Amino acid sequence: MTLFDLSLDELWRHRPRVTPPADLDGFWAETLAEARAAAAPAVAARVRTPLTQVTTYDVSFTGYAGQQIKAWLNLPAGAVGPLPVVVEFIGYGGGRGRPHEWLLWAAAGYAHLVMDTRGQGASWRGGDTPDPGPDGTGPSVPGYLTRGVLDPRGYYYRRLVTDAVRAVEIAGELPGVDADRLAVVGCSQGGGLALAAASLASVPIRAVVSQVPFLCHIRRAVTITDADPYAELVRFCRIHPDRAAAALTTTDYVDMVHLTPRATAPALFSAALMDEICPPSTVFAAYHAYGGPKEMEVYEWDGHEGGRAHFAHRSLEFVAALVH
Amino acid sequence: MTLFDLSLDELWRHRPRVTPPADLDGFWAETLAEARAAAAPAVAARVRTPLTQVTTYDVSFTGYAGQQIKAWLNLPAGAVGPLPVVVEFIGYGGGRGRPHEWLLWAAAGYAHLVMDTRGQGASWRGGDTPDPGPDGTGPSVPGYLTRGVLDPRGYYYRRLVTDAVRAVEIAGELPGVDADRLAVVGCSQGGGLALAAASLASVPIRAVVSQVPFLCHIRRAVTITDADPYAELVRFCRIHPDRAAAALTTTDYVDMVHLTPRATAPALFSAALMDEICPPSTVFAAYHAYGGPKEMEVYEWDGHEGGRAHFAHRSLEFVAALVH
Amino acid sequence: MTLFDLSLDELWRHRPRVTPPADLDGFWAETLAEARAAAAPAVAARVRTPLTQVTTYDVSFTGYAGQQIKAWLNLPAGAVGPLPVVVEFIGYGGGRGRPHEWLLWAAAGYAHLVMDTRGQGASWRGGDTPDPGPDGTGPSVPGYLTRGVLDPRGYYYRRLVTDAVRAVEIAGELPGVDADRLAVVGCSQGGGLALAAASLASVPIRAVVSQVPFLCHIRRAVTITDADPYAELVRFCRIHPDRAAAALTTTDYVDMVHLTPRATAPALFSAALMDEICPPSTVFAAYHAYGGPKEMEVYEWDGHEGGRAHFAHRSLEFVAALVH
Amino acid sequence: MTLFDLSLDELWRHRPRVTPPADLDGFWAETLAEARAAAAPAVAARVRTPLTQVTTYDVSFTGYAGQQIKAWLNLPAGAVGPLPVVVEFIGYGGGRGRPHEWLLWAAAGYAHLVMDTRGQGASWRGGDTPDPGPDGTGPSVPGYLTRGVLDPRGYYYRRLVTDAVRAVEIAGELPGVDADRLAVVGCSQGGGLALAAASLASVPIRAVVSQVPFLCHIRRAVTITDADPYAELVRFCRIHPDRAAAALTTTDYVDMVHLTPRATAPALFSAALMDEICPPSTVFAAYHAYGGPKEMEVYEWDGHEGGRAHFAHRSLEFVAALVH
Amino acid sequence: MTLFDLSLDELWRHRPRVTPPADLDGFWAETLAEARAAAAPAVAARVRTPLTQVTTYDVSFTGYAGQQIKAWLNLPAGAVGPLPVVVEFIGYGGGRGRPHEWLLWAAAGYAHLVMDTRGQGASWRGGDTPDPGPDGTGPSVPGYLTRGVLDPRGYYYRRLVTDAVRAVEIAGELPGVDADRLAVVGCSQGGGLALAAASLASVPIRAVVSQVPFLCHIRRAVTITDADPYAELVRFCRIHPDRAAAALTTTDYVDMVHLTPRATAPALFSAALMDEICPPSTVFAAYHAYGGPKEMEVYEWDGHEGGRAHFAHRSLEFVAALVH
Amino acid sequence: MTLFDLSLDELWRHRPRVTPPADLDGFWAETLAEARAAAAPAVAARVRTPLTQVTTYDVSFTGYAGQQIKAWLNLPAGAVGPLPVVVEFIGYGGGRGRPHEWLLWAAAGYAHLVMDTRGQGASWRGGDTPDPGPDGTGPSVPGYLTRGVLDPRGYYYRRLVTDAVRAVEIAGELPGVDADRLAVVGCSQGGGLALAAASLASVPIRAVVSQVPFLCHIRRAVTITDADPYAELVRFCRIHPDRAAAALTTTDYVDMVHLTPRATAPALFSAALMDEICPPSTVFAAYHAYGGPKEMEVYEWDGHEGGRAHFAHRSLEFVAALVH
Repeated sequence: MTLFDLSLDELWRHRPRVTPPADLDGFWAETLAEARAAAAPAVAARVRTPLTQVTTYDVSFTGYAGQQIKAWLNLPAGAVGPLPVVVEFIGYGGGRGRPHEWLLWAAAGYAHLVMDTRGQGASWRGGDTPDPGPDGTGPSVPGYLTRGVLDPRGYYYRRLVTDAVRAVEIAGELPGVDADRLAVVGCSQGGGLALAAASLASVPIRAVVSQVPFLCHIRRAVTITDADPYAELVRFCRIHPDRAAAALTTTDYVDMVHLTPRATAPALFSAALMDEICPPSTVFAAYHAYGGPKEMEVYEWDGHEGGRAHFAHRSLEFVAALVH
Repeated sequence: MTLFDLSLDELWRHRPRVTPPADLDGFWAETLAEARAAAAPAVAARVRTPLTQVTTYDVSFTGYAGQQIKAWLNLPAGAVGPLPVVVEFIGYGGGRGRPHEWLLWAAAGYAHLVMDTRGQGASWRGGDTPDPGPDGTGPSVPGYLTRGVLDPRGYYYRRLVTDAVRAVEIAGELPGVDADRLAVVGCSQGGGLALAAASLASVPIRAVVSQVPFLCHIRRAVTITDADPYAELVRFCRIHPDRAAAALTTTDYVDMVHLTPRATAPALFSAALMDEICPPSTVFAAYHAYGGPKEMEVYEWDGHEGGRAHFAHRSLEFVAALVH
Repeated sequence: MTLFDLSLDELWRHRPRVTPPADLDGFWAETLAEARAAAAPAVAARVRTPLTQVTTYDVSFTGYAGQQIKAWLNLPAGAVGPLPVVVEFIGYGGGRGRPHEWLLWAAAGYAHLVMDTRGQGASWRGGDTPDPGPDGTGPSVPGYLTRGVLDPRGYYYRRLVTDAVRAVEIAGELPGVDADRLAVVGCSQGGGLALAAASLASVPIRAVVSQVPFLCHIRRAVTITDADPYAELVRFCRIHPDRAAAALTTTDYVDMVHLTPRATAPALFSAALMDEICPPSTVFAAYHAYGGPKEMEVYEWDGHEGGRAHFAHRSLEFVAALVH
Repeated sequence: MTLFDLSLDELWRHRPRVTPPADLDGFWAETLAEARAAAAPAVAARVRTPLTQVTTYDVSFTGYAGQQIKAWLNLPAGAVGPLPVVVEFIGYGGGRGRPHEWLLWAAAGYAHLVMDTRGQGASWRGGDTPDPGPDGTGPSVPGYLTRGVLDPRGYYYRRLVTDAVRAVEIAGELPGVDADRLAVVGCSQGGGLALAAASLASVPIRAVVSQVPFLCHIRRAVTITDADPYAELVRFCRIHPDRAAAALTTTDYVDMVHLTPRATAPALFSAALMDEICPPSTVFAAYHAYGGPKEMEVYEWDGHEGGRAHFAHRSLEFVAALVH
Repeated sequence: MTLFDLSLDELWRHRPRVTPPADLDGFWAETLAEARAAAAPAVAARVRTPLTQVTTYDVSFTGYAGQQIKAWLNLPAGAVGPLPVVVEFIGYGGGRGRPHEWLLWAAAGYAHLVMDTRGQGASWRGGDTPDPGPDGTGPSVPGYLTRGVLDPRGYYYRRLVTDAVRAVEIAGELPGVDADRLAVVGCSQGGGLALAAASLASVPIRAVVSQVPFLCHIRRAVTITDADPYAELVRFCRIHPDRAAAALTTTDYVDMVHLTPRATAPALFSAALMDEICPPSTVFAAYHAYGGPKEMEVYEWDGHEGGRAHFAHRSLEFVAALVH
Repeated sequence: MTLFDLSLDELWRHRPRVTPPADLDGFWAETLAEARAAAAPAVAARVRTPLTQVTTYDVSFTGYAGQQIKAWLNLPAGAVGPLPVVVEFIGYGGGRGRPHEWLLWAAAGYAHLVMDTRGQGASWRGGDTPDPGPDGTGPSVPGYLTRGVLDPRGYYYRRLVTDAVRAVEIAGELPGVDADRLAVVGCSQGGGLALAAASLASVPIRAVVSQVPFLCHIRRAVTITDADPYAELVRFCRIHPDRAAAALTTTDYVDMVHLTPRATAPALFSAALMDEICPPSTVFAAYHAYGGPKEMEVYEWDGHEGGRAHFAHRSLEFVAALVH
């Protein structure tokens, strides 16, 4: 994997000019208002697992348009008093899986809410949440990036981003959670959703961890990588050149270079210089645009792994300093 | 591409024992009744093209649950009197594209109705028809084969097969069409849909052409090939081993080995001995199960191309003998 | 597929300095004079096909050195009076196939002459014309680009270009054709041959359509792509470094950057920014060199498909405006 | 991934005849006696991590020939009284990584000892233990499977298996561990080592979990898969055909089909029918040879993932029933 | 590389029934008579090289139809008296290269005649001999296996086999050569040509070495491997299914299963069990058909390398015992 | 293979600034002094081969730390008087193989000493020399480039470079060798070792031939290619980002950009512009740094073959002019 993107020096200076959709604020205000209006109380049911040291709840909450979204809530067994909470979002294609697959944050003493990803959850880790449409705005390349891409209102990521915002907003309703001490974390698609939640949620967030995030400077990404999922969008534009402009405009509504200027919480990013899935220049573009205090962890030799266990350790320290 | 599947001798004898779902008849009777109940009249609007020898209509008709499905109707320019009609279904990932991409059957003197494929039409030929859900029955692997696969009622192919049946049933409403002289044709997914329409439609069909059809003996296909789209289902089962049985049961409802025994129209099949996408043994399984008179064209050296122009020529002759 | 070549802005300015062979004019004058001297009248025999709306002739004409070349001539059935004619050349590896594979231009009201490609016609669409040598000038990499490449006079493309020029020159002899209204079209290798014919033919051409043409700025192509067929030449030079200069000099005789300055007919080009087979900078080099009026259709997201049905539509309009 | 190996029915009956080396018992008796004679007491040093719910020790113990081997010991924080202990071995190429990468068994209430793999730990998870030779018996293909393969006494896996046996034998010396309640677990190479430890260790083992184990029926594996690491041995034999017999004889000393008849603890195996890395027939061969009570978990749709989270859950239940 | 073909036991018993063309004898008798009638004396010109221990001649002789074929003749420098001679043929795509690339047999004390391969010699080792056609019998897939394949008389391998026979027949005319002590050797395509020469040459041959030969049981080869060059023929048949029978019949004329029954010289074959380019069952078919005394060297772990230096050593011994 | 690295013009000017380790001189002085102190006399035993024109000795000499290293010595049979000697080093993964695989230099009248490569010799040509450690400095990626890379003193290439220097220093002890006329040659890893020997040996060297050398400007190589073996180091750094700096520092001790300034013998280099294994800019960096007279042979069209037979011829001429 060669250094195919900008050099590290260039990345630190790379602040591309981007133009957000004119109605971006209104679009999200309306979308979120509608979701909040349709909201029902979250439900958390204790589940039995073989884990004696972790208490698990199967959570259902209402996301986009009041649709039911699943999540796991893991807490250290026997915790007394409300705990700081980490809300985690998942990478492309995966779902919430099983409770015993999410042990890191509970082992560090946090309540840990893992949001399932609507419609995904069948490619590498199972999920339980459907995407109840409307998938009614046109054709799509297999995958999620072009599902409904011809209309921002019917776009898949409008629904998923809304779910993520809502997950943060309802975290405080859950058992054992101290809503005042909340962090959002995620890797790849999950890292993009963490940034989205930090930009759009109506509740205070203390810390953001965004590892090699997806959904950043999409217009550039599609010209410098041929790796999926960005390449799904390339294939769509190839087949529909007369609709390419419309499709790219739709993605602007969920592009972190446009959303993150409104975030204010301290954030830790990571970028990997050999990452062809979420190229480093797209991550740096979102980083430079981010509105709050921020740190960047660069992995010079990594592809999309983006630091793995090293970054997990760094994330634990970053969040602990701000939230615990 | 080696001869990875059964030998030709074995294929001629290959009649696997298969067990259809107990409620297969009821399932489709109810589904189709519902679609017919929700039907509105088809609409056909003349469109201008650069083709002086072909008259084109942009057709909208109601498919599954009364949802709008697009199609093209091409007729030889200046035809007098109603023409025999060929209804064509499209391979996986493609859509109806542009009218000038469908010239074969009009050049042979037929009215030619090309049904768009809901939700597809972005991978290799553009489409215009959304899949308005409900995609509400669970997670899916990118693609269409596992969309809603946990419940036969929410399964994508329930909707698509219904569209295909309805396309045949409304063909007679269209301008310049002689409903008594109707054939169905298709390749791969389109070949599967042609068989489905031949098995389920309520109107008489004179000829069926099914080239290297998809959706045949799916339970075997997933164990002998690692090529998409069948491999989408393998990946689903891998991630959800506890739901694999349910997923496979759902696919039984749209498997041609179960549906084709009720077909009666003369049919021309093709199979290709080096076809890893629709392996020949799965095609032969559907062929042997087919209820009407039938012929099989074998391509010894082909992969999924399945005879290309050679088979097109054969198809023209086959249909002409029965329909013209 | 990333944007691996020049950016679109650079492409519009990309006018490389190239040096044609000193005897280029003489070379072709002599070659064509010899072909014309050896010419016999074209023969067109009606053939039966299943197409009722198209009349087909099996054409034989004399190409390079008086050798027999095959072609199909398709006309709209029942046409009265001579028709404008489109001469089409075929992409690398393919042949003229069957008449029913060539319906577009007849459907638009043209006589359509499809020239078979000598020696090819076995890789993806069948052909019927041999390449009767002399293949007597040295070793070659499997393929056609290096066949006889050590000597311009024995080079395969000298023969093939001559065939293409002759196809245009004899089109007026064919039944139902109005020689005063003639266009040449082609994609990839066919696009290169269309340019060659436009540059060298002795009869007037009204329109040229050259889609992602091959045989353009070959010296650059071999340094920026590793895709066949250009890579055939790289392999040859690798094995014969002491003959690389001679091989490249031979290709200069059939390079469109040298030939197209003498063309005068209006031309429509297409280039695709992600095309690794005929990289966009090589296409733009020929475009900028082209001597007649010209338009460029750019496909930003395409590889070597170069616009497919979209460009076909555009071509129909372009030719109709000039020829009909 | 097709079903390339035996069918499930055949697997249940697949009991190949194999011939162990005549001196197998003596070989291991001598090797282990030497390691025990060279042993020094294990050292366990508390390490600080960001995990508040887990107590971690950095362990050093003496393995083969008294050489120092690293491990992590994770315990639930605040545990009172000695805990049952799970000794885990790691897959090919990985090392012990960081303590926070091993949370499953501590979360279930066990002491968890993770043995580092000598010389590995640089391909996908870092390690800290060198392989201090002697690598003095000849050439090797990159990788570990052929390191020293020409002589059983100098073979890499002689050293690694000894480490694994010793890890089990010293587990009782560690803080917070109840030596009478001990299980061994591992996946792939780790699954092979778990079987080796169950076969050779001098202390009682209550439960064995061996997920898609490596090092099973190696002589068959090298003829039915071309995936690494088994293919490393194929490449060696290809280059040294005159030494192939010697190399295969060496691997017999560490082949689980020969060692597992002497195991007595209850064991849970898994095999995956599409596993090309550790083909199912090789796993079944070891399963059938295994001397103790045993259960087999078959994953029909998996490759080498071998059940992932599903099997982890199953493993937790299996061990809990026997050990807790 | 797995054992994809028959097992070793099966190979020893594998004697497929094959039917030679009825006029095989006449075909070759006529072809060779024509070549001999057109023959001119061979010419051998001393060439300077940097090799002080080897004397090299640049040889030209007449092959098929009296066409000029190049070769190198290497002799140990300072040899006195005529030497036994080894005639070598080259693998697919290569040419005679440079004299210093052929040192083995001269180093063992032989005169060594290396025949160039007409038209090849540009893919991996340079060549100097053209293939002056006629390439006039139809289309071909890039490569040589289908060049002229529709007519045995125009087939490329008719010409090449004739060259090989003629090389053997003229070897005795060359300086320093003892025509009574002659061996033929070759690998892959060269191994097939060695068998052809042993079957058809009019002069006595003392020893034959045929390493993993090509051109053996071609009808089976095309169904069990997808590797080139056999796959060239598959692609041809795929595009021309109506000409597949004719193409296969043509290859029968140069298939060693038909030609080798007439050979009488002692022969050493090699086959490699993991060879996907020249599968072992095709080699064994020719071996079992071979008319003279024969030995088979099996390489269990090799692909198409077929034993490399090990087999070279074996070949030196085999030839020395019979020829020196 | 495109021109992925610098252009030829840039390469001629490419003189990167590099910083050698401060103790580089001391490191090698000490290492070599230790090896010389531990040295025992070389042993050369006549071996029988089938080659009548070459006399072969099986050589053992002491390399790093007095460890035994194997080599072949080939001489023209019947040579009188001492001969000039060429010492050759081998590419990555290979070993000395069999004597009959090394005929070029003996055929040109030289004594030819081919040094085996410790621990390698199992990937493409067999070897006989173990690497007797200590491999005791940490984990490694499969392969040799990271074996012991965390400590310059335990690094694999410290041992191998020392072997190479010692091979040159003992060549004069061997039968039939004139120590005053000595050249070193090699390709890839062998080309790097030739440069290392030219830089560090204590005996006079008359000529150096370094074909597409490995081990040149490693810090750049790992950022511009993803081909092995350089990519082994990338994988190591990826897994051990906290140890990447240490690993790169270790490689500085064996990087030819640091060692070659001290070489004085005339040298012939080759670089290939499409070489992704040893990219041309890394070769040019070593070339520009080289301390003696030097020539560069550029292969514009080659990958890592780097000129093959053409360069062999050039090497014979280059060495003959300086040494014979």
